Amino acid sequence: MNVYRYEQNPLVTPADVKPHRDDFEVIGAFNAGVAEYGGEVILLLRVAERPISPDPSVVLAPVYNVEKGELELVPIRKDDESYDFSDPRVIVRRDQAPAFEYLTSLSYLRIARSRDGRTFTIDDEPFVYPSQPLESFGIEDPRITQIGDTYYIYFSAVSPVGIGESLVSTKDFKTVEHHGMIFGPDNKDVLIFPERIGGKYYALHRPTTKSCGRPEMWIAESDNLLYWGNHRHLIGLRDGMWDSGRIGGGAVPIRTERGWLELYHGATKDHRYCMGAVLLDLDDPSRVVARSGRPILEPDAAYEADGFFGGVVFSCGALVDGDVVRMYYGAADTSMACAELSLAEILDGLEPV
Amino acid sequence: MNVYRYEQNPLVTPADVKPHRDDFEVIGAFNAGVAEYGGEVILLLRVAERPISPDPSVVLAPVYNVEKGELELVPIRKDDESYDFSDPRVIVRRDQAPAFEYLTSLSYLRIARSRDGRTFTIDDEPFVYPSQPLESFGIEDPRITQIGDTYYIYFSAVSPVGIGESLVSTKDFKTVEHHGMIFGPDNKDVLIFPERIGGKYYALHRPTTKSCGRPEMWIAESDNLLYWGNHRHLIGLRDGMWDSGRIGGGAVPIRTERGWLELYHGATKDHRYCMGAVLLDLDDPSRVVARSGRPILEPDAAYEADGFFGGVVFSCGALVDGDVVRMYYGAADTSMACAELSLAEILDGLEPV
Repeated sequence: MNVYRYEQNPLVTPADVKPHRDDFEVIGAFNAGVAEYGGEVILLLRVAERPISPDPSVVLAPVYNVEKGELELVPIRKDDESYDFSDPRVIVRRDQAPAFEYLTSLSYLRIARSRDGRTFTIDDEPFVYPSQPLESFGIEDPRITQIGDTYYIYFSAVSPVGIGESLVSTKDFKTVEHHGMIFGPDNKDVLIFPERIGGKYYALHRPTTKSCGRPEMWIAESDNLLYWGNHRHLIGLRDGMWDSGRIGGGAVPIRTERGWLELYHGATKDHRYCMGAVLLDLDDPSRVVARSGRPILEPDAAYEADGFFGGVVFSCGALVDGDVVRMYYGAADTSMACAELSLAEILDGLEPV
Repeated sequence: MNVYRYEQNPLVTPADVKPHRDDFEVIGAFNAGVAEYGGEVILLLRVAERPISPDPSVVLAPVYNVEKGELELVPIRKDDESYDFSDPRVIVRRDQAPAFEYLTSLSYLRIARSRDGRTFTIDDEPFVYPSQPLESFGIEDPRITQIGDTYYIYFSAVSPVGIGESLVSTKDFKTVEHHGMIFGPDNKDVLIFPERIGGKYYALHRPTTKSCGRPEMWIAESDNLLYWGNHRHLIGLRDGMWDSGRIGGGAVPIRTERGWLELYHGATKDHRYCMGAVLLDLDDPSRVVARSGRPILEPDAAYEADGFFGGVVFSCGALVDGDVVRMYYGAADTSMACAELSLAEILDGLEPV
């Protein structure tokens, strides 16, 4: 696979983003949803900010209090042996492991704009900030599906009661309308197809199951984008391969002559995240046609290998122009980068299922 | 709380049910959905059957193969140390614990009929048997909501990819129409309200979450019963109380003058299952009005205390006639029983939230 990484990579780093509060530091500007609006490329960044603790023996866990309309910082002593701090992303109460009790950072969505798709200017203010009861731990990993002149933005809404997928919409990237949680917990990595197929809307989703099952991709249908059903299992993990540990949808499905092309992430059990592709039937996207035997992008560059959580490439959106796929992606849970790939080469590299 | 347990309890036991195959034994006839049809009380039993293993050192795990249209029995040696057999309901691969690899029994739905609600005749054949890809490990814990002349039957559909809630409907308890999975995995204990409220259908549901959160009750809405959204958290566990470990909806919500009365199950962390009640606002069932401080039914009788999984009362349906609530319930994951309670007494016993 020929991969052209932009010379400007990483395109956005935490150092480029001013924290939204003086007592916070930006630790990630990554996993952005992608759209084209008003002649610009919009990266809807997931910005992760961590409270700066004045006491190094105390971690401050950020929790948005919806009733009060303000962020609260919950202090937890690092020497409290009832907690496990080994994963830098979460604070785990040992008697409830592996479920987490708090996150160490608060994520929200912020807009970066560019005329050339390479040099971005970042808005001063958050665009979508936690405001709902199910968002009190933050909002993560947005995707954007444009249908007509409406941009549907959906993201992981995280709170003490679980992680689900919530939906907002905008026509101008200035104001948003909230539509509630469209996939209940635990669910992530939702991707809404950009048009109706046989009269129905479709979405990919990724339940995280506890009783049985593994982190795999499902498909659901809807007639209004708000209510979803007919959930079906779509593709699973593949032992011994690059997608043996977990998988989930990445970019909004791309309509091609050969089928719907979904660029998805796959990770091994030791958390090395690559990007690959799966091809779905044009008329029945619950039918899997072909799938990447090998990744189309692997975490090789320095900014992909090292960071807050290294060894990760994770795309939430791509733009397609002719044969050129501009795949934007989060690198190492830290920064944003972009790689150009050939659409024909991705399709030719797929193996029939 | 005055509880009148029927003298005929348990009303249905495994000994009353002929296995659907000669090489199987019935180990449970419990957690029945309840309806009134054609002048009869219908108990839609969850029947659990276990393959009889000719070799005592081998467990046979039943798996329905949808493509072949037949049940397969997967042999697993009891001395295989990669498996944990300590929970009699499941077979757990130690490296994937606590998720299970197989169930030890196959559950399906079978009709028991009664003129007086106390003495039941059990159909010879299964009524709803696994037939879909997401049902290959069986179907469990049905509930029945009657809307007009249609009975909507929904149940936990269990397969290797997860446990979700699937929907079928019938008008005659002879044939069913399949509507697919309405709540994706992991989800159980769905209860569809029996009428539209403010133009919307509502359902309670109980996600089982892994990342964070606990087994608690949520509410969702729909405009066609097939597609669901606007998921919201409804009520949570209460530390130190009878519902401190897990909760989930039980009977179809009962419309009363004071609100929607939901009879729900709550268990402690050591798996003692009781029944209690929660009252929801008539016009906005996402608003919680009041809740039982103490259970309305506890597992005290011998047939509730002892069985395949003892210390369990678990209702999936009740019939209401004036002040009399006939609450049918599974006892000890083994049998069916019924208790009559006073509607007024349940309501008066609720504590404002």
